[in-house]
Amino acid sequence: MLDQIKLHNLKNIKLQNGNVMHALKKSDNDFIKFGEIYFSWIKKNKIKAWKYHLKMNINFIVPVGEVLFVFHDYKNNRFREIVIGTKNYARVFVPPKIWFGFKNISPSDSLVVNVASIEHNDNEVRTKNIEDINFDWKNF
Amino acid sequence: MLDQIKLHNLKNIKLQNGNVMHALKKSDNDFIKFGEIYFSWIKKNKIKAWKYHLKMNINFIVPVGEVLFVFHDYKNNRFREIVIGTKNYARVFVPPKIWFGFKNISPSDSLVVNVASIEHNDNEVRTKNIEDINFDWKNF
Repeated sequence: MLDQIKLHNLKNIKLQNGNVMHALKKSDNDFIKFGEIYFSWIKKNKIKAWKYHLKMNINFIVPVGEVLFVFHDYKNNRFREIVIGTKNYARVFVPPKIWFGFKNISPSDSLVVNVASIEHNDNEVRTKNIEDINFDWKNF
Repeated sequence: MLDQIKLHNLKNIKLQNGNVMHALKKSDNDFIKFGEIYFSWIKKNKIKAWKYHLKMNINFIVPVGEVLFVFHDYKNNRFREIVIGTKNYARVFVPPKIWFGFKNISPSDSLVVNVASIEHNDNEVRTKNIEDINFDWKNF
């Protein structure tokens, strides 16, 4: 299940007046459809967890800072950790029905960009408190 | 022509661990179709100008910093200026066939997010050097 999560390296094109960073194209692998794009800031040392989508496919990109994403396969009690950000500039594709959370591991605010296959809808989201899934965030 | 450019206010939702900022939904006004999303950094005091698209519809969002966009109607020699960023958090919809450029007017780097209706294609882009269109950038 966790191997359905895909990591795609992205280009960061160096330019004199400011870099251009690729994110997502319609023709890219794992692109399904466009529903919504939104931004989620995460402050120093903070964690946003846990969330689960019944229908939404997500593409995460981190153009500012460095973020640890943790994905949890509840049935098999397995975890997968992926770090992306300016140092490892990539897109993470996440299919629905996987619990996830993320932690800012950079010394300043990080920006998570979410390009989602459907618009936000409370009815297809499940949440848990951070302590409801046993993961050792302090290791990071 | 320049009145086809539309400004849409966006929500910036204050949250303890980091804000969530809306950007673009499929059901939003002026959403046409999704082709590509990419990021363009712009350094302090720098200008990126001029560009013209034959086909691409653009949505500009600035989640970091403050950016002046200048749009030019070549036929009627008119200009339109719009400032967006964290202080005036909004989306600018730009149809094709309008010359545009932008300048970072914040004290640090700004991030321009471009959600475009088609994928980048050199064949539908025209460019000019900054001095080829007479606009007084120093006023800003």
